[in-house]
Amino acid sequence: QSSVVVGGIVDSAVRYVHNEGGGSIKSLVSGSNQTSRLYFRGDEDLGGGLSAGFWLESGLNVDTGTSTGGTQFFDRRATLSLSSRGIGELRLGRDYVPTYTLWVRHDPFSHVGVAGSNNFSSSSQQGPIRSAFSTGPNTTVRSSNAVEYLLPSGLGGLEGGLTVAAGEGGSAANGQDKLIGGRIGWQSASLGVHASRVITSNDLTASGKFKDTLLAVNGTVGQVRMNAALRKYEQALSEETLLLLSTAATLGQVELKASYLRANMKGKVGTAAIDANDATQIGLGAVYSLSKRSALYVQGARINNDGKASFSIPGGTTMVAGGSSKALEAGVRHNF
Amino acid sequence: QSSVVVGGIVDSAVRYVHNEGGGSIKSLVSGSNQTSRLYFRGDEDLGGGLSAGFWLESGLNVDTGTSTGGTQFFDRRATLSLSSRGIGELRLGRDYVPTYTLWVRHDPFSHVGVAGSNNFSSSSQQGPIRSAFSTGPNTTVRSSNAVEYLLPSGLGGLEGGLTVAAGEGGSAANGQDKLIGGRIGWQSASLGVHASRVITSNDLTASGKFKDTLLAVNGTVGQVRMNAALRKYEQALSEETLLLLSTAATLGQVELKASYLRANMKGKVGTAAIDANDATQIGLGAVYSLSKRSALYVQGARINNDGKASFSIPGGTTMVAGGSSKALEAGVRHNF
Amino acid sequence: QSSVVVGGIVDSAVRYVHNEGGGSIKSLVSGSNQTSRLYFRGDEDLGGGLSAGFWLESGLNVDTGTSTGGTQFFDRRATLSLSSRGIGELRLGRDYVPTYTLWVRHDPFSHVGVAGSNNFSSSSQQGPIRSAFSTGPNTTVRSSNAVEYLLPSGLGGLEGGLTVAAGEGGSAANGQDKLIGGRIGWQSASLGVHASRVITSNDLTASGKFKDTLLAVNGTVGQVRMNAALRKYEQALSEETLLLLSTAATLGQVELKASYLRANMKGKVGTAAIDANDATQIGLGAVYSLSKRSALYVQGARINNDGKASFSIPGGTTMVAGGSSKALEAGVRHNF
Repeated sequence: QSSVVVGGIVDSAVRYVHNEGGGSIKSLVSGSNQTSRLYFRGDEDLGGGLSAGFWLESGLNVDTGTSTGGTQFFDRRATLSLSSRGIGELRLGRDYVPTYTLWVRHDPFSHVGVAGSNNFSSSSQQGPIRSAFSTGPNTTVRSSNAVEYLLPSGLGGLEGGLTVAAGEGGSAANGQDKLIGGRIGWQSASLGVHASRVITSNDLTASGKFKDTLLAVNGTVGQVRMNAALRKYEQALSEETLLLLSTAATLGQVELKASYLRANMKGKVGTAAIDANDATQIGLGAVYSLSKRSALYVQGARINNDGKASFSIPGGTTMVAGGSSKALEAGVRHNF
Repeated sequence: QSSVVVGGIVDSAVRYVHNEGGGSIKSLVSGSNQTSRLYFRGDEDLGGGLSAGFWLESGLNVDTGTSTGGTQFFDRRATLSLSSRGIGELRLGRDYVPTYTLWVRHDPFSHVGVAGSNNFSSSSQQGPIRSAFSTGPNTTVRSSNAVEYLLPSGLGGLEGGLTVAAGEGGSAANGQDKLIGGRIGWQSASLGVHASRVITSNDLTASGKFKDTLLAVNGTVGQVRMNAALRKYEQALSEETLLLLSTAATLGQVELKASYLRANMKGKVGTAAIDANDATQIGLGAVYSLSKRSALYVQGARINNDGKASFSIPGGTTMVAGGSSKALEAGVRHNF
Repeated sequence: QSSVVVGGIVDSAVRYVHNEGGGSIKSLVSGSNQTSRLYFRGDEDLGGGLSAGFWLESGLNVDTGTSTGGTQFFDRRATLSLSSRGIGELRLGRDYVPTYTLWVRHDPFSHVGVAGSNNFSSSSQQGPIRSAFSTGPNTTVRSSNAVEYLLPSGLGGLEGGLTVAAGEGGSAANGQDKLIGGRIGWQSASLGVHASRVITSNDLTASGKFKDTLLAVNGTVGQVRMNAALRKYEQALSEETLLLLSTAATLGQVELKASYLRANMKGKVGTAAIDANDATQIGLGAVYSLSKRSALYVQGARINNDGKASFSIPGGTTMVAGGSSKALEAGVRHNF
């Protein structure tokens, strides 16, 4: 008897992006409210509070039919778990890193779409991410080859986890990083305080490990939630600090949300100073729920770059350094 | 609760192809009666005659286990829909173009197998398809990045649809084409009349858009259906006109089918005249249904090329220009 | 109505490998007890003892989320079957070759993990496998483009099968091999005797076909099973003979297993004699069942190479010719 749950999300939007110094581009995009995906998961009760489980999740672009991970088909998650109600969960495989797990909870745009906070966790320009991973896969979101331990639920709001990943003698270009990280926090219905740190070493970090540190708080009053999160990436002499302030309010079937994201670059990459290459993003959005599973949404964002920074909203033309990027999109999301 | 339907088709045949000037090749092939595929689809009733739905469909080769789209895993279809019983359907993603939707209905060989009409919609030689798309993906069957509107059913046989796709500032090689098209038709149980046109622009069509125009009629008398379809591809100074005449008759568990396909090339590509490079294909087939879901089939086809044309049935050796190609295959199809 | 069974296995372990002359590497690996996989399969009763069925199976690495076959997504199996209770099964597609079907039954480590007999069926060094297939896909495990006939069950323990695959005028590098093979055997609950032979031709075997011959016996007394299997690969002037002796004992929830594998190389590749390049592998393992579907396991293995042989356990550093390789791993397996 099959015990598999097949589920996922399809999400597509019409997007308009205008980058300073280039023209504008209209496109159909995928996953602007939540990433389009297909998953297979299941659990087995082993008795005595123990259970085994698996989760295989593949990202997809519903606009073109491509797999977001290419031949890394289950790019979003591939895990095997042994869980105990009292002791917690041992999880093996590919999964989110602890810093990201917390960060994304404080971004009402879920790290995707025109206003997602992912726009500033980019290897597109000089800084700690590019130095530590070049343009290959980085560990700001996920890690392969991970062994995780997660605290059980039911600890009065306390939550936490540890992750270690093997470097396997491989290369950052192949996504092989040695990683150690953890998170700890306390979350109630009205208040949350969280901290996390992840340290990554690979063949490109001989001059200093990549450090990813997060502090976040959230508070909910009635139908309004407010979030503040601070995340710092460091490698060798370069630093990137992100400040994310956001809010989301639910009014019947409508959710309104807004975020302010600031990237502060500091230090040097080689001999080049990057201190002036800061950037700011403002995002606004509204989601109208058609049902528990389906929704319409519209959202807009603007990025202003300082110095030689050239962060931009995906889907546009090449932008001039120090320029601005603005975008609008309207779409549909359907969970299945 | 999962609301996903997992389904598909596996179809495999033993094929023999003989191309003039080369030898013959025997092979095991996939998808000769219907393309082998795996799909995930579902619908959600939103109330008030509204529904949301998705369809993710991946082509596969059951002879080798390969994905037909490579890393474009859902190469056959990836769509998200909002439908109203009264107003129609809004569909976003990757789907058939309107001309193809009608064309394939008039080909009893479903555009696949040795006798499929796909043999002449090929970029293997000079003509409008090759000029507009080189050997990359073309829009004679599907388009990515499409926004579609489809008329609702229940209009007394009237049917139609509109498709626009964004070029996204990309290249034909990456399957990024700006596209606009529509279809309109009337179909009853005994008679159908249809017309469609699709116009594609991309980075290779500076000297003229790619135009794809279709007219088709079908009639059914008792167990016999007859089809006639005319399709014209145009780009710059070159034209390819396809005439497809076909019939299919159901006799209990057996379906017999036959088709005549003629390609008429006209005009020039650069300075080279292509007028003489015409070709004719004759196809015959029989399908024996073992059940509603499973069938055995046998089919044969012959292509005769004129001038420098070298259309051929897939699975053979390289053919001499102006030569003939003939093939036979016997296989099994199973829908699940 | 969907008739599809979605199932699979996730299996992950922590592995330590030490190769002589290099250092040691720790890694998270996938599929050490059984290969991690996802499958879709189903059957349709056609009446009168007839049935149709399909099986699509994709290997995956749960440690990284990658597909083991890359764009050959259903790399493990892609088949379409017509079966008769009395006459047997006709199976088309990609499947195990007959020699492998029997060989793996006599390896308690299932041809995977640190102690799997796959370690010696490798193209990593000169010998018949490398000569016949270079480093491309070989037919020691599976064949694409196969037509199989399998004897029905219920013949008093007699079992057997025939496989032919089309070369399709292609290349070994593309996995296109002409293949003919068969197997015959007799298996009761306490005793089994089996023989098989597979002959492969391709564009690299002009100097002699690749021959793969197997003899195997197994006996079960109480909870203890013993296996002996002999497999010989031959191509042109080179030979590799494998002797596999193994045992497995079930003690309540625990299964203990051990295997001895010897590779004897003989003859020449070009002008280089390979006779001295033999190797021996010893494997030990224990599996603790948490349920019918989930288990914990630990296993170790050691390879000793003679001459210039450099067979090694996957996951280690490059090894010196004639060196030794040793490894230990502990993991979890979950069937779904």
